[in-house]
This record gives sequence, structure tokens and C-alpha cells, in this order.
Amino acid sequence: MNRLEQQMAFIRELDGLKQIGRQTYLKDGSRKENDAEHSWHLAIMALLLGEYANEEMDLLKVISMVLIHDVVELDAGDTYAYDTAGNATKKERESRAADRIFHLLPTDQASYLRQIWDEFEEQVTIEAKFAHTLDNIQPMMLNAATNGKAWKEHQVKLSQILQRNARTGEGSQALWEYGKTQLIQPHLETGAILSDTDIN
Amino acid sequence: MNRLEQQMAFIRELDGLKQIGRQTYLKDGSRKENDAEHSWHLAIMALLLGEYANEEMDLLKVISMVLIHDVVELDAGDTYAYDTAGNATKKERESRAADRIFHLLPTDQASYLRQIWDEFEEQVTIEAKFAHTLDNIQPMMLNAATNGKAWKEHQVKLSQILQRNARTGEGSQALWEYGKTQLIQPHLETGAILSDTDIN
Repeated sequence: MNRLEQQMAFIRELDGLKQIGRQTYLKDGSRKENDAEHSWHLAIMALLLGEYANEEMDLLKVISMVLIHDVVELDAGDTYAYDTAGNATKKERESRAADRIFHLLPTDQASYLRQIWDEFEEQVTIEAKFAHTLDNIQPMMLNAATNGKAWKEHQVKLSQILQRNARTGEGSQALWEYGKTQLIQPHLETGAILSDTDIN
Repeated sequence: MNRLEQQMAFIRELDGLKQIGRQTYLKDGSRKENDAEHSWHLAIMALLLGEYANEEMDLLKVISMVLIHDVVELDAGDTYAYDTAGNATKKERESRAADRIFHLLPTDQASYLRQIWDEFEEQVTIEAKFAHTLDNIQPMMLNAATNGKAWKEHQVKLSQILQRNARTGEGSQALWEYGKTQLIQPHLETGAILSDTDIN
């Protein structure tokens, strides 16, 4: 295969992300979103909310990162944030998937995408931290828009949300404050999120 | 509303693009894709295929452009490439939609997104031309992957495809050559595309 054919093979392979379902409902609650839609939504958020990052960052890198962050779910599937058993094996399953999928590309692009995917996973750089902030705030925003539909279905407790979001403020303190006060707090009050601890 | 609330209102509004259907089938033919999925797929293509652009370009701008290029379809709906009546009123319907939707944002961001959306529509800069190239090649790639399912359903003729793609080579001659030889030609041979003229 020549270079362009390898690139097109990868692009066709990624079409499969349109069929990897997530646990988050669309804002009207009609169905759950998939990985392609979610990744697009994060990219839109990166484009508009970069000003709230805790430090200066490379916007193109953040957008590239969120566009491809879920590629490994083609093989490994989506692991729900509050699925303890699934999360125990997630890292290994996803690393195997990354080995296969990125290597559909020509070597230089395979290396680059693998590197930004690893960077996302390691969550050390501001770009990776901010991408994780968005990855956590986006489903929170949709859960809030549906009056906590997914939270109620999974009987999610506040302690679980706080644990899941232990590092959300590392990418953007402002967005995490917004999440706590505007997206979580109101749904504690209605009981959509089970209140088993304090929010602060 | 404060600045962040305006931004989040826009981001929530755009969730609706996950429910605007297009005429293109996923690669496995199981269902048609929607605008959010399509926009994500174009952004992935921009990230990987920029090297084929006819001129040097600003990659962040191309990606931003493809991420938001279909936002107006929230109000105006998707107009199929070969729908003559729909295309006659498309420009006015989409411009009205842009006025409403982008103005959910704070003024500076509303202006910027409106400007890159106008730039996409005007198709003068290399970024806009390349974004159009991708917008044409992506459905062609999926049509080819499904052995021309959508082409057959709409009884599409080669002359219509060539007219629709009259400017595809302006963004990338290499991608348009690939489209002609690898995506169109084989499906002329099977009859999925009706052969009413010459391809060159």
C-alpha cells in the first residue's frame, strides 16, 4: 500500500467509532451518544474554552488529542466511568488496541498519534490535563441537561463523581468550579445524584 | 448570562448536530451518518491529509472550519448534494441560521466563528478550498466502501458527481486524483454510478 492508501485505510477504520456507544445521553435524552460524536463535541469545546486552561497551551495539540483519544475503543470498547471491573483491565486492553490501530498509518504519523495518545493517558502536560477536563465536563454537561438521566440509571453517588473528577481541576480550575456549582450541585438537590458526602 | 454560560449554551445547542442526518451511509451500510460524526471524520482527515493540500495552509484553521462547517444545518437541515430544489434556497436558509446560532456566543467568538464559516462558504482561501475537498472526498470514500449504496439509491450519474466536484481539485489535486481513480472509477465499472459522460 502506498502512503495515501495507508492513511485512507486508517480513516476508514476510524469510521467504526461512530458505532462505539457511550453511557451519556444526548441533551434531549432520546438516545446515548457514540465515541465519534463525543470526540467532535470535545473538539468544539477545546476550540471555545481554551481560555480557561490553568496554563498557556498548544490548542492544535489539545484538539488533535481529543479527536483521537477514544480510538482505542474500536477494539477495547467503552468502559463506563463507574465500572470497577472494566476499569481494572482497561489500561492493558487499550494499549494493545493502540498498537494495532495506529500502525495502520505510515510510520511517522503512527508515531505522532501514538505519542499524543500516550501523552493524553499520562496526564502530565497541560494539554493532556485540559483534554481530560473536557472529557469529564462534557458528559457532566449532558447529564445535567437530561436532569441526571444516566446518573439515576446507574444510581451514581456524589463520592463516585468526586473520585472520578479528582484531577479535573488540574486542566482548568474554572471549568471544574462551573461543573461543581452549575452541573453537579443542582442535581444533588433533586436527588438525581445520591448525596453520600460533601461536595467541598 | 456570563461569558462561560454563553459558551456552554452554544456547546449544548450544538449537541443537536448529532441528530441532523446526512445521506451518506457508514462504511458497513448499517445506517446513515449524522453531522457531528461527519464533522469529526473531516477533522481527522484534516489532521492526517494536510500534506496533500495544493499550498501551505494553517492546519488549526482548517480543523476549526470543518468542526463548525455544518452548524447552520441545526436550523436549515442537511441539503443533499443532488437535491436541486433544496440547493436553490440553501444559501439564504443557512445564512439566517448562522446569524442565530453563532450569536449565542460572546461577541468575539461569535465573530470569529462566523468569519471562518463565511470563509468556508466563499471557498477562496486554501484553508476553505481544502476543507471543501475533504467535505467532498469523505462521503465519496464511504460511498465507495458500501459499494455505492447511496449512489444507487439516488441513481446518481457520473455527470452529477463531476459537477459536484468541479472544484474539489482546488484544495488538493492529489486527493481529487485519488477520488477519481480509486473511489469513482471502480463504481462506474460495477454500474453503481450511472455512466453518462467521460471521467476525464
